[in-house]
Amino acid sequence: MDHRLNELFGIDHPIVQAPMAGASTPALAAAVSNGGGLGSLGCAMMTPVEIRAAIREVRRLTDRPFNINLFAYTPADLDPMRVAKMRERLAPYYAAAGAGEVPDVPVPKSNFDAQLAVILDERVPVFSFTFGMPPTQLIAAAQQNGATVVGTATTVAEAQALQQAGVDAVIAQGAEAGGHRGTFMGSFEDALIGTMALVPQMASAVSLPVIAAGGIMDGRGIVAALALGAAGAALGSAFLACPESAIHPAHRAALLKAEETMTTVTRTLTGRPVRTLRNRLTTDLAPHLDEIPPYPQQIPLARTLATAAAKAGNYDFLPMLTGQGLRLMREEPAAALFARLLRETEETRKRLSP
Amino acid sequence: MDHRLNELFGIDHPIVQAPMAGASTPALAAAVSNGGGLGSLGCAMMTPVEIRAAIREVRRLTDRPFNINLFAYTPADLDPMRVAKMRERLAPYYAAAGAGEVPDVPVPKSNFDAQLAVILDERVPVFSFTFGMPPTQLIAAAQQNGATVVGTATTVAEAQALQQAGVDAVIAQGAEAGGHRGTFMGSFEDALIGTMALVPQMASAVSLPVIAAGGIMDGRGIVAALALGAAGAALGSAFLACPESAIHPAHRAALLKAEETMTTVTRTLTGRPVRTLRNRLTTDLAPHLDEIPPYPQQIPLARTLATAAAKAGNYDFLPMLTGQGLRLMREEPAAALFARLLRETEETRKRLSP
Repeated sequence: MDHRLNELFGIDHPIVQAPMAGASTPALAAAVSNGGGLGSLGCAMMTPVEIRAAIREVRRLTDRPFNINLFAYTPADLDPMRVAKMRERLAPYYAAAGAGEVPDVPVPKSNFDAQLAVILDERVPVFSFTFGMPPTQLIAAAQQNGATVVGTATTVAEAQALQQAGVDAVIAQGAEAGGHRGTFMGSFEDALIGTMALVPQMASAVSLPVIAAGGIMDGRGIVAALALGAAGAALGSAFLACPESAIHPAHRAALLKAEETMTTVTRTLTGRPVRTLRNRLTTDLAPHLDEIPPYPQQIPLARTLATAAAKAGNYDFLPMLTGQGLRLMREEPAAALFARLLRETEETRKRLSP
Repeated sequence: MDHRLNELFGIDHPIVQAPMAGASTPALAAAVSNGGGLGSLGCAMMTPVEIRAAIREVRRLTDRPFNINLFAYTPADLDPMRVAKMRERLAPYYAAAGAGEVPDVPVPKSNFDAQLAVILDERVPVFSFTFGMPPTQLIAAAQQNGATVVGTATTVAEAQALQQAGVDAVIAQGAEAGGHRGTFMGSFEDALIGTMALVPQMASAVSLPVIAAGGIMDGRGIVAALALGAAGAALGSAFLACPESAIHPAHRAALLKAEETMTTVTRTLTGRPVRTLRNRLTTDLAPHLDEIPPYPQQIPLARTLATAAAKAGNYDFLPMLTGQGLRLMREEPAAALFARLLRETEETRKRLSP
């Protein structure tokens, strides 16, 4: 077995709970870390003050290593034409949902630097990022502050660029994965590479440990990832229905009866491509993709509608991020789920043993 | 290890060389069957007379079991509006390539029944199909004539339907796979499920042996497939660059320097979605998908252009079917490649052994 991640992260099992901004919680991350894996907290949507409180809450719940994840990107300039077009496009939905006026979009500011400053100050054990690459000196600064640094790649070229930039490990995000695509070089469509194809190509092309992500839901998937040459496996959706996950109850209910064909990769929710269960918004806006303002300018437009409609019991606009492994999702406490993953992993290794 | 396929097919190793109509040859299929796997010949584009000759050639080269594959579908009625629109759309390309007039499309006829009659008459050991489901009585007839019958599914629901129809095993065609998508229920976009997600969901939902396909290029992928719960693995693209493969030399040259991001799933080549390297045709026609006539009416329109242009040394229109595992492709005789797969499979099993 590959022990590189055990040594790199100081964990017992090369299994990562993926960050999932908006769904992960300190309780979820701590449960996985306490089980001997690497728990993660997606902090991209939090203020620096919230991040500090969340890190401290994780530390209260576990003394094991954990991972804090951010979105590393440069926000596009405000696109007033598209924002206006989208406000117009969404107005009838707002009216129908009793959600009032379409909100004005504030000029987006990146708070990546301020978020990272907290992470460095708190000396977190693992810092991971997606959407791009922070400047090399910030990666080095995180490492000097004691963090192991992990980047996210959706193609071999991205993994090579991350290795060049000095990260310690790389997530191979296959096309099956739920949530935002991490693609930062080339078009996201070209970078929808299935995990089965992506991982061995990446593992052969970089010397860094590769962590496979996308479609892994149980011990069978974990052993498959290791077979492909990954040093470990990251599971996000597998933990989505846990009671420790912060998703909307309607999102959880939809996931537990969904099938593998019900997702899409869409820019309609945030402005960046994200894998989610299809809903009325993703379907109705699909013919109008060129009107969607860039990330994160679409977020307030789509989210205010979703929140107001959901409050009235209408879930047509709810973002329901998930990967493609839907039929294998279980509503199970995170600690029990993690223990099951370990059992299944050992069973699968025995089954394949020569 | 899972020995279901060994017993079902009478083979030594649960490794299938995927059919690949247009690329597979009797020599390729026989090399794999002689190595102890299941060689396949894609006969969908052949006349009944050609199929009989090809089966006899396979039998001359091996006394081991082999698989004959057909496209099981009902052709759409001729769509004169779209054909006319497409002739107009392609005329400038024909002119630029010196390819003369855009050809008239003959009304497509299905010769599936006549093709299958030869296969039954020749009592082939394994008969597989894709694109749909033949009537239950034809599946039963094949079985009564001594054939093991294998269907192709891109979703769990399709696998369940195939099981209901009485097949003996099912191919799980993941989104990574090269060539035509087998989707026959629902839209092909919704059925682009990565192999890592598709295989375990399918293996848990049907009792039939599942054969994983899509993105599997070496022994790492074969063991990953088995870990996921598949009874075996099917590899197509891995054999594409073999000297025994019938692909155009320019196709082979392009594959050997291609990267995983260079493919697309497109209806522009045949009318049905197919994974191929992007070329000028797939790119230029992408905004005009609603003009493309249904399969197989697009084939003569696109193929005549490709053939004429290639003859003049212009490969812009060449179909270059492939899966996403491009960086792992090797130009290697099929027997040597198959022997390498067996070695890598054993090495990977040992590496994962508890």
